[in-house]
Amino acid sequence: MTDRLKQLAFQVGGTSPAPHPFDPLTTTEIDTAVSIVRKEHGPLNFNAVTLWEPRKEEMMAWLADPERAPRPLRAADVVAIAPGGKVYDGVVDLKAQKIVEWKHTPNVQPLITMEDLQEVEHVVRKDPKVIEQCGILGIPKEEMHKVYCDPWTIGYDERFGSGVRLQQALMYYRPHVDDSQYTYPLDFCPIFNAETKQIIHIDIPNVRRPISRAPPNNYHPASVEAEGGFRTDIKPIHITQPDGVSFNINGRTIDWQNWGIHVGFNYREGIVLNNITFNDKGVVRPVFYRLSLAEMVVPYGNPEHPHQRKHAFDLGEYGGGYMTNSLSLGCDCKGAIHYMDAAFVNRAGASTVVKNAICIHEEDAGILFKHTDFRDESVIVTRGRKLIISHIFTAANYEYCVYWIFHQDGTIQLDIKLTGILNTYAMNPGEDTHGWGTEVYPGVNAHNHQHLFCMRIDANVDGPNNTVFQVDAVRGEGAVGSPENPYGNAFYAKKTKFTTPRQAMSDYDGSTSRTWDIANTNKLNEYSKRPVSYKLVSREVPPLLPKEGSLVWKRAGFARHAVHVTKYSDDQIHPAGRHVPQTSGEPSVGIPQWIEQAGETCSIDNTDIVLWHTFGLTHFPAPEDYPIMPAEPMTVLLRPRHFFKRNPVLDVPPSYARTPSQVAAGKDVCACKKNDGSSVLV
Amino acid sequence: MTDRLKQLAFQVGGTSPAPHPFDPLTTTEIDTAVSIVRKEHGPLNFNAVTLWEPRKEEMMAWLADPERAPRPLRAADVVAIAPGGKVYDGVVDLKAQKIVEWKHTPNVQPLITMEDLQEVEHVVRKDPKVIEQCGILGIPKEEMHKVYCDPWTIGYDERFGSGVRLQQALMYYRPHVDDSQYTYPLDFCPIFNAETKQIIHIDIPNVRRPISRAPPNNYHPASVEAEGGFRTDIKPIHITQPDGVSFNINGRTIDWQNWGIHVGFNYREGIVLNNITFNDKGVVRPVFYRLSLAEMVVPYGNPEHPHQRKHAFDLGEYGGGYMTNSLSLGCDCKGAIHYMDAAFVNRAGASTVVKNAICIHEEDAGILFKHTDFRDESVIVTRGRKLIISHIFTAANYEYCVYWIFHQDGTIQLDIKLTGILNTYAMNPGEDTHGWGTEVYPGVNAHNHQHLFCMRIDANVDGPNNTVFQVDAVRGEGAVGSPENPYGNAFYAKKTKFTTPRQAMSDYDGSTSRTWDIANTNKLNEYSKRPVSYKLVSREVPPLLPKEGSLVWKRAGFARHAVHVTKYSDDQIHPAGRHVPQTSGEPSVGIPQWIEQAGETCSIDNTDIVLWHTFGLTHFPAPEDYPIMPAEPMTVLLRPRHFFKRNPVLDVPPSYARTPSQVAAGKDVCACKKNDGSSVLV
Ligand SMILES: [Co+2]
Ligand SMILES: [Co+2]
Repeated sequence: MTDRLKQLAFQVGGTSPAPHPFDPLTTTEIDTAVSIVRKEHGPLNFNAVTLWEPRKEEMMAWLADPERAPRPLRAADVVAIAPGGKVYDGVVDLKAQKIVEWKHTPNVQPLITMEDLQEVEHVVRKDPKVIEQCGILGIPKEEMHKVYCDPWTIGYDERFGSGVRLQQALMYYRPHVDDSQYTYPLDFCPIFNAETKQIIHIDIPNVRRPISRAPPNNYHPASVEAEGGFRTDIKPIHITQPDGVSFNINGRTIDWQNWGIHVGFNYREGIVLNNITFNDKGVVRPVFYRLSLAEMVVPYGNPEHPHQRKHAFDLGEYGGGYMTNSLSLGCDCKGAIHYMDAAFVNRAGASTVVKNAICIHEEDAGILFKHTDFRDESVIVTRGRKLIISHIFTAANYEYCVYWIFHQDGTIQLDIKLTGILNTYAMNPGEDTHGWGTEVYPGVNAHNHQHLFCMRIDANVDGPNNTVFQVDAVRGEGAVGSPENPYGNAFYAKKTKFTTPRQAMSDYDGSTSRTWDIANTNKLNEYSKRPVSYKLVSREVPPLLPKEGSLVWKRAGFARHAVHVTKYSDDQIHPAGRHVPQTSGEPSVGIPQWIEQAGETCSIDNTDIVLWHTFGLTHFPAPEDYPIMPAEPMTVLLRPRHFFKRNPVLDVPPSYARTPSQVAAGKDVCACKKNDGSSVLV
Repeated sequence: MTDRLKQLAFQVGGTSPAPHPFDPLTTTEIDTAVSIVRKEHGPLNFNAVTLWEPRKEEMMAWLADPERAPRPLRAADVVAIAPGGKVYDGVVDLKAQKIVEWKHTPNVQPLITMEDLQEVEHVVRKDPKVIEQCGILGIPKEEMHKVYCDPWTIGYDERFGSGVRLQQALMYYRPHVDDSQYTYPLDFCPIFNAETKQIIHIDIPNVRRPISRAPPNNYHPASVEAEGGFRTDIKPIHITQPDGVSFNINGRTIDWQNWGIHVGFNYREGIVLNNITFNDKGVVRPVFYRLSLAEMVVPYGNPEHPHQRKHAFDLGEYGGGYMTNSLSLGCDCKGAIHYMDAAFVNRAGASTVVKNAICIHEEDAGILFKHTDFRDESVIVTRGRKLIISHIFTAANYEYCVYWIFHQDGTIQLDIKLTGILNTYAMNPGEDTHGWGTEVYPGVNAHNHQHLFCMRIDANVDGPNNTVFQVDAVRGEGAVGSPENPYGNAFYAKKTKFTTPRQAMSDYDGSTSRTWDIANTNKLNEYSKRPVSYKLVSREVPPLLPKEGSLVWKRAGFARHAVHVTKYSDDQIHPAGRHVPQTSGEPSVGIPQWIEQAGETCSIDNTDIVLWHTFGLTHFPAPEDYPIMPAEPMTVLLRPRHFFKRNPVLDVPPSYARTPSQVAAGKDVCACKKNDGSSVLV
């Protein structure tokens, strides 16, 4: 029965085909989970209802033999907040229709949902003390509807601790509803109690900064038209796939150019890729069990109070899935697109859907390989293709575009584009930024900041037992002129095996072009006799600039090193902890805690391991980034090394090829007439 | 008169419009120069006849006022070798039709041309000592037609010095003419005298390595067909521009999306971009006077003799222009393409042309910027476009694809893709590579190597007087808890001004995400009050791994540091010297020499400067790279920072935009129906 038939059968007969164990919960499953919890625990606000991921051991058994192995438990992972603020974590068995785990978790704050964010502005506008502060800055109380705020979790403020659920309101003003508010930041910061819906405190700076009187700085079409209009010299580029896409999708499993990939999605990490395999001439070889962007932190570098609180953990504190954009053909993506929706729970416990949350499409990838023999101009040139699985999320002012890119040659590339709008703060005319920020427009101070992402790499390179090596390009021993290095040109790849999580805490070293190999030491490449491996190649790897012992350093323990390696554990998904808002960092939760707990004797040699890679960039704003920022890209690569016996893309049809004997015979075998990269030789 | 008409007029009337002073020499000009030289100096072999570039002072005056300023001298730069080997450097005034400079240059060797390369193999096959060596390895003399060699310049060999023009022949064997020879490297290395056309020496290793008996490892279509055939699951992607391209070309000057770029080309650097300007709302602002890839070196890391000689300077020793590929629509490039040819001289003094040497085309560049307001889903999303000026050259086994990419936002990106075939050496079964190489196939040792490129950046950021700053992302002063850094989160961009060439010799520092600003300190950004600048962002910056004092270190002085800055001089174009083959490095020519000569007192502060940037990668081969290597890309960015007052691409028509007031009014203003990124709002 084809997939389409199965679906029709379901629609007609009313029985659903069992979801793949990695599939996100359906709206039906979310509704089921909520109703089971409600029945037992009464009124609750739901924070998250998401797939309780299958335990790896069960799942590996099922993947190995889906016909006979028992199906892993299908369950919902639930976070709920009771009236009064008590936080509950639970697991609901969706088959047995019962709660299998339910516990009150004290002193934590689950992430802030879009609904949580949306309510702050209304409260802020009506608060008398906020109105008073606006008045001081020059905003009359009749204009309070022109006052806006971006509510952030408070992060952590030692004055208020973790017990009360708080948000900080970054304040702005819009002369007109369509004006960009980031041109008019206000200098004070109300603190919102999410339980009582009240402003409980306002942080007011010593130096006041009246509202800017600079003209608006907008990017919307009417303002562009008013300033001279749009450019008219861009001719269209059409990208079409008349025969459709080159991939097949079965449920959420994609089959493309030897890759097999299950595409999941959750409220937190957004896209989750599972069970990534590569069909190597008929042998389906596992590569990664699970890949995701698991956490991030955006520390700002202005030391003045209360800017230290600006260090958003956009995934753990807000959810990259919850903030995801609905994508539309021709706007966010081009060509033949396959979309997937995303299902969530809302506060009231109803399931909701973001249409077109995930975009899946192909792109031409330019030259895949080429060589010309200089003797006779015998030549081969072959074009590549790539598969891109993407989503975009809006974190208040910023946009993060996340592209998981699969290449035909076995390379996996994670690209992130930063766009959107700078976070801004008020400054007075002539005020010194002291180098902590940039005046990107009169009265607008954009603070220095970093965007640090944590990629979770649950490796499965030819099997679950893997080992990580740090690889440094270093000079050979021996002085110039010595017998072992007579001409001084010796260099090699120095490999350091990581045997314990403590030893594996490692930083980037640009001076050795440092990379990390995820190797399966049980399998050697037949030719090179080196372990089959995937190499992490990442060059945008700034250190965490907040100092050791600082608030950010304590809270964002995952960002202290470019690479951490841990032994796999089902419960270790979130690098900064399961509940991130208002963690103090004392003790630091997530990765540092796991490593501490694992102890000196924990072995990560030839076992099931997870590599956590923190990368990103340090952003010193400039006027070019304002009022909206041209996208800035970053790239991380996972490259097969000693994994294949030879170049795995030799069977991609070349655009053009002729051999020496064909040249000698005067044959022209150009096959590029179709101009589509997929032509067969003539 | 339009350009087309001008050209017709020329074709009909026989009078040529005066070439732009930056234009490469035409075939007619090359022929003219040769005939003038011949008349005076008799029989010569021509090594290069190329544009003698206009002196900058004259050229700047002409660019400022082309109608009234005198036209810079149009001249040919000539390198010729007289019978007997004497090398002559000369300059021919093409207007006055006379030689203005002619000198014998002792003890240098001009680069090796394709013709020089082609003749070695024939000599090698007939040399009795080579035949003898082949016999020792198991190749009978009847099979000498199956013996091949890649001739390289000797680089430098202390036994032979610089006086005699020499090549080393890297030896291979092909069982069948269509087999890849790199699977059958031979272990000895003949030395060829280019003057006498004789093998003057053979380097023979102590340990002999008989010819491999492994089966061929090929990538040509017949071999793919024999191994199971081509994959058939790639559906076509069509990329079309029905209304043509968005750029105009006047002669060789391109006008695209506010950019103005003159596209030159020479035998050595390949593409040369001159007079790069950006039209900033009607004001044409200079950005770069000249950009090129000026030199490169590929040192190999095996310390055993004679592998130290493998460190090709592909541009200075062979010429990236001479080795350039003729590109074909649909094979090397896709979409609407504009090509330019390249004209050279051959040894006999005749002009030659490589058709379609340069490819100029546009590509969709994905999301240019996007922002969604989380309150109401008011949104803007705009797609970007890029212009790509590319060429590809074949350096014996390797291919280098060079892409100069212009972005609408003022960013210039240099991408280089490496593909082609690994240089290989023979190894015996079970032989230890000692970590200096990888057995990529039985009997095939691919040695470790680096690809280091030197980008010449002749800056003109809002005028010729520029200053370079090293920029490091560093932590603020003060311990965590101190009054100046209470929360320990302070960080800033530390800028170090380079005032002398000696001080400016600087290395990459990944731990500070080091960048370099090319600034015009005479012009401050109106908003940020910082100098207008272009920032060099480069993350693939390995150090030169051959040790200080080594042969490569001495010869490739430019590669000792990631950045050198020199005061502009008309004669300083070639980082490793004008004539690179057989330089000893004693003294080191090119950049180190210029810096030495400039002395301690030379100022590079607020003057006409050139920044030389060496970047690249260290390549430890793996079986995936063989028998032909999937393209591996590298990127360098030049980004405007504080150069524009605001985001310069706001007037690019969005794909989709709706403002808060439009959302409130329920208006749907999607403009993405055309799916081409250029739609106008509806
Ligand atoms: Co940023
Ligand atoms: Co290489």
